[in-house]
Amino acid sequence: MKAYCEGMELSNAVMTVIKATSTKTTNPILEGIKLKAEDEYITLTATDGELAIEKKIVADVKLAGEIVVPGKLFSEFVRKLSTEQIQLILDEKNQLRIKYTDSELFIQCQSASEFPSIKQIENAQFFEIKQADLKDIIDRTIFSVATDDTRPVLKGCLLEQDKNTLTSVALDGFRLAIAKKSIKECSAESSIIVPARSLSEMSKLLNEPDETIRVLIERNYMMIVVGGTKIVTRCLGTKEDFINYKQIIPANFASTVTVAKSQLLNALERASILSHVGGDNSVKYVITGNVMQVVAKSEAGMVTENITISNAGEDLNIAFNISFFMDCLRNIASDYVMLKFNGQVNPCFIVPNENSEEYTYLVSPIRQVY
Amino acid sequence: MKAYCEGMELSNAVMTVIKATSTKTTNPILEGIKLKAEDEYITLTATDGELAIEKKIVADVKLAGEIVVPGKLFSEFVRKLSTEQIQLILDEKNQLRIKYTDSELFIQCQSASEFPSIKQIENAQFFEIKQADLKDIIDRTIFSVATDDTRPVLKGCLLEQDKNTLTSVALDGFRLAIAKKSIKECSAESSIIVPARSLSEMSKLLNEPDETIRVLIERNYMMIVVGGTKIVTRCLGTKEDFINYKQIIPANFASTVTVAKSQLLNALERASILSHVGGDNSVKYVITGNVMQVVAKSEAGMVTENITISNAGEDLNIAFNISFFMDCLRNIASDYVMLKFNGQVNPCFIVPNENSEEYTYLVSPIRQVY
Repeated sequence: MKAYCEGMELSNAVMTVIKATSTKTTNPILEGIKLKAEDEYITLTATDGELAIEKKIVADVKLAGEIVVPGKLFSEFVRKLSTEQIQLILDEKNQLRIKYTDSELFIQCQSASEFPSIKQIENAQFFEIKQADLKDIIDRTIFSVATDDTRPVLKGCLLEQDKNTLTSVALDGFRLAIAKKSIKECSAESSIIVPARSLSEMSKLLNEPDETIRVLIERNYMMIVVGGTKIVTRCLGTKEDFINYKQIIPANFASTVTVAKSQLLNALERASILSHVGGDNSVKYVITGNVMQVVAKSEAGMVTENITISNAGEDLNIAFNISFFMDCLRNIASDYVMLKFNGQVNPCFIVPNENSEEYTYLVSPIRQVY
Repeated sequence: MKAYCEGMELSNAVMTVIKATSTKTTNPILEGIKLKAEDEYITLTATDGELAIEKKIVADVKLAGEIVVPGKLFSEFVRKLSTEQIQLILDEKNQLRIKYTDSELFIQCQSASEFPSIKQIENAQFFEIKQADLKDIIDRTIFSVATDDTRPVLKGCLLEQDKNTLTSVALDGFRLAIAKKSIKECSAESSIIVPARSLSEMSKLLNEPDETIRVLIERNYMMIVVGGTKIVTRCLGTKEDFINYKQIIPANFASTVTVAKSQLLNALERASILSHVGGDNSVKYVITGNVMQVVAKSEAGMVTENITISNAGEDLNIAFNISFFMDCLRNIASDYVMLKFNGQVNPCFIVPNENSEEYTYLVSPIRQVY
């Protein structure tokens, strides 16, 4: 390999693909970035075996070739060369020579033959959606995925799409998040469970809110191309492998509380300080008429906040994990939220007052200790 | 105690004094903040036994009293009340009740009788200096203090002051930093070794560059009052307890290299990436005529950068701890620096080209491994 390129372009491409490298792996090649010089391009690829990110940059290629560079070292170094013109020269001993101004770096690399091949998506079905909408439903559900390995499918979001709507669902057994947005076009209906890490990296690249993005799905793989960057991910199954979340949502509620979101969130933030210091992370709501008392207690003290609400239904006394409840509220944009309860032992449903069909959150109550 | 105050004022005062609380202590009262309501003020005090910070805020005191609140909990809570009017009420069981809007927090507190008394400085000698100048000499030397406990006096900066000049000196056996600035006025000459942590907190409060500050010294204590905040620190001794640093500086040098600071720093930053990955944190300078080659090597590869210099003196081949060298360069503002050498085994002196009498850094060489 012998190629010339601009430091700034190389640096940007490296920063993009490096997010797919693996940091905790027994296979060191997954910590690397594959550079492939061919025709008028250098193609950079990184993968952790599940997620793959690929980006091409323009280069003056004198001699084609490919090699895997150590990801962290290469990215840190290249970031400091963003103003320079760079020459990459590979020798026979897998040493890459990086020349810039009149200085140079040699780095020991690995052969590209060991690097896993990236799934090619060819005869895929697809749907199209506004970038902002895809980013929105990812960001507003991903925090509810399971983080342990007991049920691997719960470590992803279920993306379910019909002719009109894309729905993202995440749940971990204690809470559930559902977000919906309209799609623009599609070739067929689809459902696929996408690992949270892959969705998180995709979301970060969706930086053109008004642009439309095409999401391609082929058997157990999903792919998007955004700003010249190709992202492919292996998936965890389809809706048949997921929990049938629709049956969890009841038709009627015994209490429906409407409350100013920021007031409740501020009260919970103060309560959480106490709840986290020698407490059990819980918060209790005591709903009596049009007042909801937010109570947290720990060995350090006790906080009581009174919030004015409107309540269509029964009075109630119920406790929750305070962090789970705050996570949901933080993902709601509207000024008021509705909290829907069916007594002390059933989950609370949280929906925004505006666009209430777009978001639904559920949090299971916990046993009251005070 | 019963007092009313503004949340914003209380919050700001808590954020200021909390920096003196101890976070790793066997004495829990040092994790607290003492509140004392008296006359028209609440006085907040925190100390770790060495450093003490005290700040008064205006309050409507209905009933005088004092108590020690848990520092972290109180500060986090009060920060979220900055827009409220706050009422503080102490009961007989050392419980502090904090009322805001129609909500309230109870926290369990400790009796103020256990709280250490803060040294009162009365018949002190003093000197006066521009805030910017005091901050400058602290910030440009403090990074060189020793971090281990082998020689406790080296964990502070020696502040030595005569009729005209204040000098700050820090050294850890591998490197030395000296910074000087003119003073405005003084009552006598002084020298005192101030713990690095105390100086660091003082530096952060010196936010009025053009104002003059009075530094008070009484036996083994130093005090400043800045923006209504009183900071008192116990000290580690005087110049008699410190190392006689003046004898380290030779009159003549075998090589005097002048180099563009940012060019050398950029080269070192790139080299350090390699030097930190499986390397030994070293960098080698090969000085031949008017070229200085900066070389770093590790199992990951090798970097060679060529920098044009002017050299009055001998060629040289010498190695350093790369982080120590970068620390010094980062603390120099001028565009060019002079590196002064006396062969391969003696320390390198680094001085700026401009205001060269104000700053001197020294770094000891290390054994060359390549």
